[in-house]
Amino acid sequence: MLQSLQKDLVHEVDDKDLRVIVIAANGPVFSSGHNLKEFTVVHGKTNHADVFDACIKLMTTIQTLPVPVIAQVNGLATAAGCQLVAGCDIAIASEKSKFATPGVNVGLFCSTPAVALGRAVPKKVALEMLFTGEPISAHEALMHGLVSKVVSEENLEAETMKIAHKICQASRPVIALGKATFYKQISQSLEDAYRLTSQVMLQNLELKDGQEGIEAFTQKRKPVWTNSLE
Amino acid sequence: MLQSLQKDLVHEVDDKDLRVIVIAANGPVFSSGHNLKEFTVVHGKTNHADVFDACIKLMTTIQTLPVPVIAQVNGLATAAGCQLVAGCDIAIASEKSKFATPGVNVGLFCSTPAVALGRAVPKKVALEMLFTGEPISAHEALMHGLVSKVVSEENLEAETMKIAHKICQASRPVIALGKATFYKQISQSLEDAYRLTSQVMLQNLELKDGQEGIEAFTQKRKPVWTNSLE
Amino acid sequence: MLQSLQKDLVHEVDDKDLRVIVIAANGPVFSSGHNLKEFTVVHGKTNHADVFDACIKLMTTIQTLPVPVIAQVNGLATAAGCQLVAGCDIAIASEKSKFATPGVNVGLFCSTPAVALGRAVPKKVALEMLFTGEPISAHEALMHGLVSKVVSEENLEAETMKIAHKICQASRPVIALGKATFYKQISQSLEDAYRLTSQVMLQNLELKDGQEGIEAFTQKRKPVWTNSLE
Repeated sequence: MLQSLQKDLVHEVDDKDLRVIVIAANGPVFSSGHNLKEFTVVHGKTNHADVFDACIKLMTTIQTLPVPVIAQVNGLATAAGCQLVAGCDIAIASEKSKFATPGVNVGLFCSTPAVALGRAVPKKVALEMLFTGEPISAHEALMHGLVSKVVSEENLEAETMKIAHKICQASRPVIALGKATFYKQISQSLEDAYRLTSQVMLQNLELKDGQEGIEAFTQKRKPVWTNSLE
Repeated sequence: MLQSLQKDLVHEVDDKDLRVIVIAANGPVFSSGHNLKEFTVVHGKTNHADVFDACIKLMTTIQTLPVPVIAQVNGLATAAGCQLVAGCDIAIASEKSKFATPGVNVGLFCSTPAVALGRAVPKKVALEMLFTGEPISAHEALMHGLVSKVVSEENLEAETMKIAHKICQASRPVIALGKATFYKQISQSLEDAYRLTSQVMLQNLELKDGQEGIEAFTQKRKPVWTNSLE
Repeated sequence: MLQSLQKDLVHEVDDKDLRVIVIAANGPVFSSGHNLKEFTVVHGKTNHADVFDACIKLMTTIQTLPVPVIAQVNGLATAAGCQLVAGCDIAIASEKSKFATPGVNVGLFCSTPAVALGRAVPKKVALEMLFTGEPISAHEALMHGLVSKVVSEENLEAETMKIAHKICQASRPVIALGKATFYKQISQSLEDAYRLTSQVMLQNLELKDGQEGIEAFTQKRKPVWTNSLE
């Protein structure tokens, strides 16, 4: 599953027509994370390490992709499944969705999910989830920042598509530059972050689509993007 | 506007009677950020760079001022206007206020606003705003930490003044020391932060107003501040 | 009080039967922080420094303990008392609880509490509390991440015990490894954090209780923990 998801995420990465990726699931579970049967002693430490490496590679890929990745959650997201939600750029959930890190119940603390979760929600919320394994509701996930929007189940796809379509109206290289810069600056000091982003603003203005956007604005017309990297 | 605001912020900075600054606006817009017409090719890269430098200087000034800066928001705050709200120490908004980073619509990703926004609200909320350009409401801004209070439009000024008056009852050098220390420690490791602030607590106790405050407390009387830097 | 609390926290630290610690108070105040009378000039700078050192030692101890520490708050938590709540792993509050950092009123800015508070709630909320000294309600504390649950006063103990009992059902060394790793990774870069936690997951799988947990899961039975460090 990790390899299949990885492949799906990158296989059209250079296609100009790829503008946004939505990760959704069929059935009542968004993702329940790793298959614990792969973690029995018989599979061996090397295989275990491979699984975690594949998982981290997937999380890193999501952040380095030039297009936004949206998690469309309708149901339960647990352990590495909760990590996947936390690791996406945007997450929309239906009201019935729940989020948990229950590894502690099977003696395997959700330490890798904690990396993403601990950067998405307040420390106390993360630790209560990690120590108890108990789920939080979609509305709690919204209040605490794990998802950015909660809607009814019947509106979930429409709301996700609304956001996706909005993103498709923007210039691909502008979104790509903005996304890469966001993740780069967010771990820097305020001074370094402002120094970096000022340079990026100038770089953005020199893009063909940067110039077109400003020109269209001053001419009170809709911009026509080239989506060119120049 | 940036230069005028910069000048207003600093021109009485050493006056002991300056105790708090409130940034407010007339009309339905708090601030819509940069004038995009300054970003056309004809103005040239050097001018563009000057604009971003002035903007960063303003944001840095707000944090380094010895008095708290309150954003009193009644209406729309977009792009660098949203950054201004995120960059103030405190922000109070009326219920009708909205916050957005819509640069993506004109091909200029709000990368500098993202520095302040990404440090004020959860990552997913920031990225949805940045990728779609869509506004969030005042109540969403409160839930996600962009503002610290939301009140009705008719109570906005009274509520802001209540906070401002409360700050005016404190000792200026105590507030100045506390503010400078807060921003210094917040980016440090927990250990370094505690080491720094322990020293600052001792320094604070040696201030004339630090001693007066403790003495007044033990004598069950109101303190009389000298506002002296000694 | 700091020394007594410190002693209570560590005196059974190596006892396998110690699985969770709850900090609660009798009476209408959870903790009002330092005794300001200890900060008069007559006590001298060395004594003042000793007080802050003891306070920081306590906060550090809470994070380094191998078991979760829960603050059960029923009433007012101010200054270093608010810091204590912010410094615990989990915090449950009754609806009547309030949280404040009012040092500014007595000329002693809550700079050490600000370390914990500023890492628990959004910057604007922290600064409004620090600059005005005004309290926030339990529901505001929940919304902003200072506590992870708010319940009615009569349900407070039952709710806290429910969480504590859930934690007692887990393996002590698994919880200990997870807690230590959480605090270690949270201040690292995303890359370093994932590198560290992948190794920790493998280490966790090699624990006796890690193997037992996975085995019990595949055999569809309840795990029986040894709580052994091996």
